[in-house]
Amino acid sequence: MTELVPLPLVMIEPLVRQALLEDLGRAGDVTTNAVVPADAQVTTALIARQPGVVAGLDLASLAFRLIEPALHVSVAHPDGSHVERGQVIATIQGPARGMLTAERTALNFLCHLSGVATATASVVDAVRGQKAQIVCTRKTVPGLRTVQKYAVRAGGGANHRFGLDDAVLIKDNHVAIAGGIRPAVERARAGVGHLVKIELEVDTLGQLDTALALGVDAVLLDNMGPEMLREAVAMVGGRAITEASGRITPATAPAVAATGVDLISIGWLTHSVPVLDIGLDYQA
Amino acid sequence: MTELVPLPLVMIEPLVRQALLEDLGRAGDVTTNAVVPADAQVTTALIARQPGVVAGLDLASLAFRLIEPALHVSVAHPDGSHVERGQVIATIQGPARGMLTAERTALNFLCHLSGVATATASVVDAVRGQKAQIVCTRKTVPGLRTVQKYAVRAGGGANHRFGLDDAVLIKDNHVAIAGGIRPAVERARAGVGHLVKIELEVDTLGQLDTALALGVDAVLLDNMGPEMLREAVAMVGGRAITEASGRITPATAPAVAATGVDLISIGWLTHSVPVLDIGLDYQA
Amino acid sequence: MTELVPLPLVMIEPLVRQALLEDLGRAGDVTTNAVVPADAQVTTALIARQPGVVAGLDLASLAFRLIEPALHVSVAHPDGSHVERGQVIATIQGPARGMLTAERTALNFLCHLSGVATATASVVDAVRGQKAQIVCTRKTVPGLRTVQKYAVRAGGGANHRFGLDDAVLIKDNHVAIAGGIRPAVERARAGVGHLVKIELEVDTLGQLDTALALGVDAVLLDNMGPEMLREAVAMVGGRAITEASGRITPATAPAVAATGVDLISIGWLTHSVPVLDIGLDYQA
Amino acid sequence: MTELVPLPLVMIEPLVRQALLEDLGRAGDVTTNAVVPADAQVTTALIARQPGVVAGLDLASLAFRLIEPALHVSVAHPDGSHVERGQVIATIQGPARGMLTAERTALNFLCHLSGVATATASVVDAVRGQKAQIVCTRKTVPGLRTVQKYAVRAGGGANHRFGLDDAVLIKDNHVAIAGGIRPAVERARAGVGHLVKIELEVDTLGQLDTALALGVDAVLLDNMGPEMLREAVAMVGGRAITEASGRITPATAPAVAATGVDLISIGWLTHSVPVLDIGLDYQA
Amino acid sequence: MTELVPLPLVMIEPLVRQALLEDLGRAGDVTTNAVVPADAQVTTALIARQPGVVAGLDLASLAFRLIEPALHVSVAHPDGSHVERGQVIATIQGPARGMLTAERTALNFLCHLSGVATATASVVDAVRGQKAQIVCTRKTVPGLRTVQKYAVRAGGGANHRFGLDDAVLIKDNHVAIAGGIRPAVERARAGVGHLVKIELEVDTLGQLDTALALGVDAVLLDNMGPEMLREAVAMVGGRAITEASGRITPATAPAVAATGVDLISIGWLTHSVPVLDIGLDYQA
Amino acid sequence: MTELVPLPLVMIEPLVRQALLEDLGRAGDVTTNAVVPADAQVTTALIARQPGVVAGLDLASLAFRLIEPALHVSVAHPDGSHVERGQVIATIQGPARGMLTAERTALNFLCHLSGVATATASVVDAVRGQKAQIVCTRKTVPGLRTVQKYAVRAGGGANHRFGLDDAVLIKDNHVAIAGGIRPAVERARAGVGHLVKIELEVDTLGQLDTALALGVDAVLLDNMGPEMLREAVAMVGGRAITEASGRITPATAPAVAATGVDLISIGWLTHSVPVLDIGLDYQA
Repeated sequence: MTELVPLPLVMIEPLVRQALLEDLGRAGDVTTNAVVPADAQVTTALIARQPGVVAGLDLASLAFRLIEPALHVSVAHPDGSHVERGQVIATIQGPARGMLTAERTALNFLCHLSGVATATASVVDAVRGQKAQIVCTRKTVPGLRTVQKYAVRAGGGANHRFGLDDAVLIKDNHVAIAGGIRPAVERARAGVGHLVKIELEVDTLGQLDTALALGVDAVLLDNMGPEMLREAVAMVGGRAITEASGRITPATAPAVAATGVDLISIGWLTHSVPVLDIGLDYQA
Repeated sequence: MTELVPLPLVMIEPLVRQALLEDLGRAGDVTTNAVVPADAQVTTALIARQPGVVAGLDLASLAFRLIEPALHVSVAHPDGSHVERGQVIATIQGPARGMLTAERTALNFLCHLSGVATATASVVDAVRGQKAQIVCTRKTVPGLRTVQKYAVRAGGGANHRFGLDDAVLIKDNHVAIAGGIRPAVERARAGVGHLVKIELEVDTLGQLDTALALGVDAVLLDNMGPEMLREAVAMVGGRAITEASGRITPATAPAVAATGVDLISIGWLTHSVPVLDIGLDYQA
Repeated sequence: MTELVPLPLVMIEPLVRQALLEDLGRAGDVTTNAVVPADAQVTTALIARQPGVVAGLDLASLAFRLIEPALHVSVAHPDGSHVERGQVIATIQGPARGMLTAERTALNFLCHLSGVATATASVVDAVRGQKAQIVCTRKTVPGLRTVQKYAVRAGGGANHRFGLDDAVLIKDNHVAIAGGIRPAVERARAGVGHLVKIELEVDTLGQLDTALALGVDAVLLDNMGPEMLREAVAMVGGRAITEASGRITPATAPAVAATGVDLISIGWLTHSVPVLDIGLDYQA
Repeated sequence: MTELVPLPLVMIEPLVRQALLEDLGRAGDVTTNAVVPADAQVTTALIARQPGVVAGLDLASLAFRLIEPALHVSVAHPDGSHVERGQVIATIQGPARGMLTAERTALNFLCHLSGVATATASVVDAVRGQKAQIVCTRKTVPGLRTVQKYAVRAGGGANHRFGLDDAVLIKDNHVAIAGGIRPAVERARAGVGHLVKIELEVDTLGQLDTALALGVDAVLLDNMGPEMLREAVAMVGGRAITEASGRITPATAPAVAATGVDLISIGWLTHSVPVLDIGLDYQA
Repeated sequence: MTELVPLPLVMIEPLVRQALLEDLGRAGDVTTNAVVPADAQVTTALIARQPGVVAGLDLASLAFRLIEPALHVSVAHPDGSHVERGQVIATIQGPARGMLTAERTALNFLCHLSGVATATASVVDAVRGQKAQIVCTRKTVPGLRTVQKYAVRAGGGANHRFGLDDAVLIKDNHVAIAGGIRPAVERARAGVGHLVKIELEVDTLGQLDTALALGVDAVLLDNMGPEMLREAVAMVGGRAITEASGRITPATAPAVAATGVDLISIGWLTHSVPVLDIGLDYQA
Repeated sequence: MTELVPLPLVMIEPLVRQALLEDLGRAGDVTTNAVVPADAQVTTALIARQPGVVAGLDLASLAFRLIEPALHVSVAHPDGSHVERGQVIATIQGPARGMLTAERTALNFLCHLSGVATATASVVDAVRGQKAQIVCTRKTVPGLRTVQKYAVRAGGGANHRFGLDDAVLIKDNHVAIAGGIRPAVERARAGVGHLVKIELEVDTLGQLDTALALGVDAVLLDNMGPEMLREAVAMVGGRAITEASGRITPATAPAVAATGVDLISIGWLTHSVPVLDIGLDYQA
């Protein structure tokens, strides 16, 4: 399996600082400051309350350390690990105040990103053995694209375009405004460099035929059923990368993957997943 | 019903600028720039593809205008409106390039926030006629707290604490570290001003009894079933605000509300809701 | 007395960085760089040149460390301490260049915030033995609200609203535009959640009577003399928190406090106080 | 008199945005949003409640417009004007909600900066007819240096160094560490360019003699009484700019100015002045 | 020729604001404010003092408008135009103060970016008629990558990778550390998605042979002379994109292009070009 | 020679963070992450590929450490050193991944700033033995003024104005709009404080005569040949600082310096210099 490489600190630190300030507001943690003695020490454990895949430990850990450098995080199951209900993901030891103040921000990152990783893994597992890669889209939560894409990788998925500038993806509306597939693709080829791949969304096999004749690098087969997908893959015959999309779920993914497509792209992995329920348990 | 007041531009503009830059990357919209003529004009409509409650039109609209000031947005169903599948939420008219470039960022805000509003409304509707207010928590997506809380209001809910500094909320771990409910509450009262309310999480009726004796302003009745909640509400007898929490859903909310609690707080409204599916249709 | 809890580093670091850059400009400390040898070491002492209460040592200390990590600050009288003229607040040891470059920024924070703390303490001391708390307002120096509020706490005061979103405070202009006290209070109650307290500004006992009938949580008794305040407190009879305001000074505060009000709010603590004169003495 | 030139918008906009966000917090103006109808319009007037000099109208005006572009500000007495108690400084017309929401931030800037301008004018007036210029120092409120310096100009004063990089100012501690006045000045001359002026702090006439022999551009005559100042000015005989400093007030300034010094520098103009009391009156 | 699409305002505004503040410092344009009457109006012209290609007018124009919205810029030769010595690029009309204050920042952007465009065009012109595209690299001036890449497009060039995340480019050091070309390419293929192209730097024809056998998408033929390049292109035979690099100049580019390579990448276009000399002439 | 004092970290860290993020984009270093094992260690050397003067090691070093704190940089030739082709400037040891990821950003700073330092030194060397100082101008690359000015100092030059607010520099257009040299200088003297120097650009000896009669502090002798410069210097006779400008190169500088001018200001040092070619060699 592909190694999951951590994001550089310089990429995640601004997000964690922003999130902490959002929670601290102007007066800080008034409850903890009033109720908890300054010298109280605690040991806690991040516990999975349901099975899933972990992602976001670096962000959670940074939240704790930015609030209290004396908090020590010891990771048992790093990002990308499958955990079972009740398993300890990490233990944290240090001043109780910092622990309580950073807890919610740390969990908000960890539960959300683990939710993305877990959802991804659920589809990746469903198509295991097939060649199809599971990829995410640009339908992300504003501000979190970099870390959501990372969470998809933690779940065993891959990343499609990170933004509008990554590659050409000609959609139906581009085609309509450009006056057809041919002028759209020709303008794209003339307008971008040799190293930029061109992908075209097609809804019918007729469009696919045109696309192949124009030599596009990839085709987005949108909302096609398995049978039509299989036919499309056969038509392509390896001349282009094939990507299936359209509300594919763990239940429907195996049939889609079985058609032989290269990529299955899924928007809900980043826009509509529940958190993975992870709690911070305080040891007696 | 409470009027939904828009957020000031000064609060949402930084979020929208950040999200646009995240999508534009370093090269901008290479597809649209290559494929779509500079002078093409389009009219589009934001269409609900499923029933729900709208939230986030100001952010979506700002995304369009920041990319292309010549884009005119005309709103048919403002934030807070219930829309049916197929209804037009707004129409947008202007240069095709700007429309296509801003589309994804605009939709990412609109669909996510409408998802939050729709989820909130589903619980609000479920308890209509009861006095219980539906409130959200601090379990929000990092960076989006302000706008998620707004979306909860759009869905007919109310907002609990916005951050650690809003009010005192003494949870089980605070109590454990402080050495009991009494020292925790006493320290809290000594440590914060007269205007700050003190809420205490209680898991048993015995704890509730202690809390009431200490005169807390509100009690968080955590993970109690309807019967126990009803007993708790009776014990409180109006001496404190009562808040029920613990994975309450539209299905279980009516029974909870029927116990007479003042507030039902629900974390998943902001951390685990699917988007409301809204599309941008290009008119022929 | 209430413990003074330090602000998290994540809250003060942006302020200190901004202030240092404001002083360094584009060329840095041209005097020190030209005149002082790179290897010169000094020991200095922060000395109170007048009696007062210290606040802002964390910001001053951070200014020194951000310019020169080798500067070691050793605190003798932490924030919240009363110091006499001539007392050493802290000693600092390390490279002379960093000391001289950071000195002004460190002192600008320390002297200003100690000025706020000292002014607060002067009123707190004046009402000692009475139940009235001294609180500050939203009349703060732009950009410094968080740290000024902290300095008020260092001086023994408490904090009223931190911003427009903390609690409802209905002032005379709100009442006038809303068409009276009753509609104003009723709209407020309908428009905000159960946990938000509602305070109303009243100028006469007649208004107070109306306010009490409407069940507001607190009343702001604006510009009333001690006799009228005493009458007001009697009318309230514990049914609401009472707050006196209106240019109250250490000289007039005892009479105000003696009326039995709960809070005395004072704008000038944060908008019009002189610095506490603290110097940095270089030891021979 | 010198014309007072407005600061470019690009310099003040970040300050005003930061201050508004500090006050709006995460929920905005909950009182106004609940109590004031969306369509209510008001006319208000900024009224001087005491005599003084106005400064900061551009910042106040920007605060109103950033919250509500429909607010129109009409200025009667621009920055730099002397106003009497009761005079109208500006009138503002537009939506009541925006007026109420922006009011405190606008006043916080206006009252503080007018306080600085008024204090400056009080000393400028005291020395009118003498050649001495009144100048401020680097003892400013962190974050506000640019606008405080502007307010000093509004009050008829001038600006000394804006930061550590503006000019060389060799103080007593620099001299001590450098091993004497001569090495300090010589290193300074060798270390900075021809266009940078060199000023030296001197405490005695003996030091002044040394300084003049070394040809410094300006001398800071620190904490000298009028008689000694007069002697110092005579010694200088026009060979250097003379600056007097040391807790000079409107009462003591005339005697200082009469000694013939070129500059009188005063730290308290920017670090210890009360606000000018300016209110926002709502017209019936 | 490819249309040159403007960068969205949201991408360039932060750069222009930062540059203006860098020049305004803390006191603004003291010369203009003192010397130029507030009501003086001028008409000026941006004049090419040498032949070249224009780039950066949007940034220059924004600099003028951010300082003074009343400045009107009328463009005669937009970005991408070839201009001769003495030709008017644009005329600007409005208040003299704003013109003088913004002038240097506007010219700093315009002259630098036009310098990049002109250098690019010099190589593009040199290879006209050949298929080779001229592309820039990641050797850019820190902070300006987006606008420098735009300037290369203005000069008729194309853009290679915008950053480390755009595509895989395996260089000699990657190969050395990975233990050879084969493991490097195989790890790359396993580690990135289907849509990411893989380019390999090769220094010898033997390495090229290995690369082709591994099926890389593109080869970077580093520091090869024309003869060896020609041989390399023949070996590739269209199976991969060929990119030549290594200090190629307008003088050497034709011979390189004649070898049939697809891309000629040149670092000095963005790191070592002189400005295009453009002046702002004030009309009598 | 003047000591070269490092810039405080607080001034350079924002630039380095911005540059790293610009290169990392949204996905980070996809090549290195895929190809290089996480545990690979390397030793590298920054090698001068041509003779020159080093500047920017602190920025380069910070780039490495922000990406990977385990990278250790050991400097052999610090900023300001002359290095010969092939000399080792610094060695770096640590994880291969961090080395490869930070390499380009580090080199972009180091090569550009060393280019500025080297160009400066070439002119400084050309006038060695003359009193003339070599100074840079405000014609800098947007965003990099502070570090470019530093690089000029590293090359043995000095800095003229850092921005519009440093000193008065009255140029030909100011004079034209003000209605002549006399009104321009008189307004400047009236409008700025005693400590601000006034410099006037003159193109003819007649203008110089007027300037001297008005007692300006410095004269900018623009585009004069050596003979006319010599005459001008004689006319000035030490009454003002003399600055020569106008496309002066290492070849023409000796003749200019021989005229006895105090300053030679050169714009191209910061706007049109090639990088110093420095490579990062990986040791076997």
